[in-house]
Amino acid sequence: MAEDTPAGVDVGETAILGVEYTEDSNPPVVGEGSTVREGTIVYNDVETGTGFQTGHHALVREQTVLGDDVLVGTQAVIDGATAVGDGVAMQTGVYVPRETDIGDDVFLGPNATLLNDMYPAIRRDADLVGPDIRDGASVGANATVLPGVTVGQNAFVAAGAVVVEDVPPETLAMGVPAETRPLPEALDDGL
Amino acid sequence: MAEDTPAGVDVGETAILGVEYTEDSNPPVVGEGSTVREGTIVYNDVETGTGFQTGHHALVREQTVLGDDVLVGTQAVIDGATAVGDGVAMQTGVYVPRETDIGDDVFLGPNATLLNDMYPAIRRDADLVGPDIRDGASVGANATVLPGVTVGQNAFVAAGAVVVEDVPPETLAMGVPAETRPLPEALDDGL
Amino acid sequence: MAEDTPAGVDVGETAILGVEYTEDSNPPVVGEGSTVREGTIVYNDVETGTGFQTGHHALVREQTVLGDDVLVGTQAVIDGATAVGDGVAMQTGVYVPRETDIGDDVFLGPNATLLNDMYPAIRRDADLVGPDIRDGASVGANATVLPGVTVGQNAFVAAGAVVVEDVPPETLAMGVPAETRPLPEALDDGL
Repeated sequence: MAEDTPAGVDVGETAILGVEYTEDSNPPVVGEGSTVREGTIVYNDVETGTGFQTGHHALVREQTVLGDDVLVGTQAVIDGATAVGDGVAMQTGVYVPRETDIGDDVFLGPNATLLNDMYPAIRRDADLVGPDIRDGASVGANATVLPGVTVGQNAFVAAGAVVVEDVPPETLAMGVPAETRPLPEALDDGL
Repeated sequence: MAEDTPAGVDVGETAILGVEYTEDSNPPVVGEGSTVREGTIVYNDVETGTGFQTGHHALVREQTVLGDDVLVGTQAVIDGATAVGDGVAMQTGVYVPRETDIGDDVFLGPNATLLNDMYPAIRRDADLVGPDIRDGASVGANATVLPGVTVGQNAFVAAGAVVVEDVPPETLAMGVPAETRPLPEALDDGL
Repeated sequence: MAEDTPAGVDVGETAILGVEYTEDSNPPVVGEGSTVREGTIVYNDVETGTGFQTGHHALVREQTVLGDDVLVGTQAVIDGATAVGDGVAMQTGVYVPRETDIGDDVFLGPNATLLNDMYPAIRRDADLVGPDIRDGASVGANATVLPGVTVGQNAFVAAGAVVVEDVPPETLAMGVPAETRPLPEALDDGL
């Protein structure tokens, strides 16, 4: 892939930058100071800001727009048709479905799983609507966020939570199904 | 791998179709109209129907038989010795252990995890028995299904559930550990 | 990578043994009788014992020391700076963060997720402290273990549990959040 690599972008030998998923698709545009590590695959019609970083064996599919300084960790998957802000970190194994919105400074912990289809087996013609994760929100490891849910600004979803309804700004969502409560002091101090 | 590719099958350059895990194993048989995408690995002694589709970095191990129109999503793993029916969709990151049975029209959501060994650390000589997922059943994202559990026909396992006992047909299993209840109307209507 | 492969070590053609993450890093040292399978990536400054085995698309990062007979399963990730004992099995999709300690004869089930940072989005300067998983302990599939938690000797963490506090030796931790109880007889007998 080396001959197509934009200036100032470091692409691993076994990474694939530009999967031509349709004939009229366009090569990805990757910002300066980016690193796409070994084994990672980026489709056509992806646009990243500067300082884009990936782990290994990550996947970013088509019609995805990423801000500056976004990390897509090892084995993290953005399944396409998604907008992501600046300063976002997706840790190892995160799953982001199509039609998801992710704000600035969002953190998605290891194996956090977002969804866009409530009853996938039968509602094959349903609209897909992913979560809306607002600026500064954090989704803990192995948490699951259901379709169409909004996780409010600076809200925290605890590790392992299953979030079935909106999480108000600056609250903590915990449990299965998740219930919300005020942020603990340790988190509140940090905002 | 191009020289060995069956007619009518599209195999990515970095996909591996046929891992010779023993000397007397036989190359996989992949049906017409199939696509094995970049980074995916299929072992010998795998047989797929027509219209087999994979995502990226998926793995299908030996002694697995798949029906027609099966999707094995990105990073989904079928660990071998498993039978899968027609029209089955395994989303990103699904884990299917050895000795699992999966019927027709089954849906496994992102990161759904099936198990075949209850006390793996100590019962090293125990028989492995995976779940039995019946026709039309759906297992939600990030759900966990314990060894030997039957998920009945058209049953739904909710996202994040941990299923420790059989789920009757046309019921909904939710929670940790999962409890069953009648299907909500939205699902029942669809059947 | 074939020219660099140590004697008695089987490395897949698409595996990468030795990612030079800094200029002064040193190639990994892999013990006799080891197998690094297709798609797996091992960084420099990793040291394994004898009989090291990997699945596919696994990742072992720098400053990791593994004992003898360690299995790092398909898509399992050791994110670096971690010590692992002898006879440890990490199943498919396990995530082990930096600064984790894992004893001898530990079992980590499919998609088990360990953490090293409680409030990652805001406490960017916090010390990272992974769990301490003691000899003979078992962490079930899809379980989540929070930062700094000790899972005691021969303890069991059930599938899907979210472990927020220490688990005493020879107890069972279940649920979200996990509560501990005596080991069931089936497990106790095996010790």
